[in-house]
Amino acid sequence: MGVLERKPRAVALISGGMDSAVAAALACEAGEEVYALSFDYGQRHVRELEAAARVARWLGAKEHKTVKMDLAGIGGSALTDDMEVPKDRQGDDIPATYVPGRNIIFLSVALAWAEVVEARAVVIGANAVDFSGYPDCTPPFLAAFQKVAETGTRAGVKGSPAVINAPLLDMDKAEIVRQGKRLGLDFSITHTCYDPCDNGSPCGHCDACLLRKKGFQGAGIKDPLVE
Amino acid sequence: MGVLERKPRAVALISGGMDSAVAAALACEAGEEVYALSFDYGQRHVRELEAAARVARWLGAKEHKTVKMDLAGIGGSALTDDMEVPKDRQGDDIPATYVPGRNIIFLSVALAWAEVVEARAVVIGANAVDFSGYPDCTPPFLAAFQKVAETGTRAGVKGSPAVINAPLLDMDKAEIVRQGKRLGLDFSITHTCYDPCDNGSPCGHCDACLLRKKGFQGAGIKDPLVE
Repeated sequence: MGVLERKPRAVALISGGMDSAVAAALACEAGEEVYALSFDYGQRHVRELEAAARVARWLGAKEHKTVKMDLAGIGGSALTDDMEVPKDRQGDDIPATYVPGRNIIFLSVALAWAEVVEARAVVIGANAVDFSGYPDCTPPFLAAFQKVAETGTRAGVKGSPAVINAPLLDMDKAEIVRQGKRLGLDFSITHTCYDPCDNGSPCGHCDACLLRKKGFQGAGIKDPLVE
Repeated sequence: MGVLERKPRAVALISGGMDSAVAAALACEAGEEVYALSFDYGQRHVRELEAAARVARWLGAKEHKTVKMDLAGIGGSALTDDMEVPKDRQGDDIPATYVPGRNIIFLSVALAWAEVVEARAVVIGANAVDFSGYPDCTPPFLAAFQKVAETGTRAGVKGSPAVINAPLLDMDKAEIVRQGKRLGLDFSITHTCYDPCDNGSPCGHCDACLLRKKGFQGAGIKDPLVE
């Protein structure tokens, strides 16, 4: 295929979780060639990165890059620092698992890579229905970041900015699980828990586990990670 | 000093160059306590980082953090890859020294650190008068990034986002040199050249050298780095 006929490219942020896997699979389904991007940012669980590699293989990603970055040095989160992960949390405040600026940083690097591989989209599994209330997952933030792509990149100022594509933004978790099933995702390759047991099984009580449970229950599907 | 009386804090991006040093010094002069932030992003010249450390010391920064990040793996620039640095360049196109997304990424990490140390500003030496035409140095980009700070951070959604402060934006290089002199900056501690000679002296012909030369000439001051 020549340049004109080649598949459109998308850089997809892959965390190892269910949401980013489904979001990227939707991009594949839409005919895009996926460049998978993950981060080794000093998160407490290298299991996330192993899951990200499995997901990238499942997607048939053209390339999977893991960018190492010492956000633990920046601090301020239960996911990177020695703070306790909240369990069975109630209420609407932004939780301790919020990593300051995480999606902002991840989208920035994705946008940079999109410039280099001439991708027309950046795919993120952000979801603003069943989510933890992180500010960098919301529609106003994603709209603001789209403007950054339009004004701050070479592709943007030349009139063809990468599109920030968050296909799960308005889905609830049950819908995400249903989409994953429809797309043939083996959920056992994903990793969700913020605070897994020593044997790797999910704790069942952190925000991430509670939201995942809600999704599988709502979809009427059994989560293979839960006994 | 209690929390209420403490000095306001600012995270300042410090590249080792003249512009970021002057921008941060202006923040100090305005009474802010500076947290200096630099990046080891696979740039070809570790001299930049040595200069950044000298500048941070000169500023009396409360802390100087260097975040390591493998942007060379992302590629696409003469500053991180094995591409030739353009010399005595003419014309308005975006040059090969443009590192895709660089300021977007740097501002994102600065914003994250600002959340953690509760800084009220992020200082960047971006300049849109005598500059190389990089899209991520322009007023529209900085305005877009301000919206990211407002929508995508905890401080932002709580109504007190960090302010993206680019005090040099409308200055020409001569004015930046004059400000540096007024603030007592010893220009010999800074490093500007994209492609220095083996002994560390500036090449005199890359974009960065040409702009610096223009600044010193315009200010009628001798550059201590040039014989």
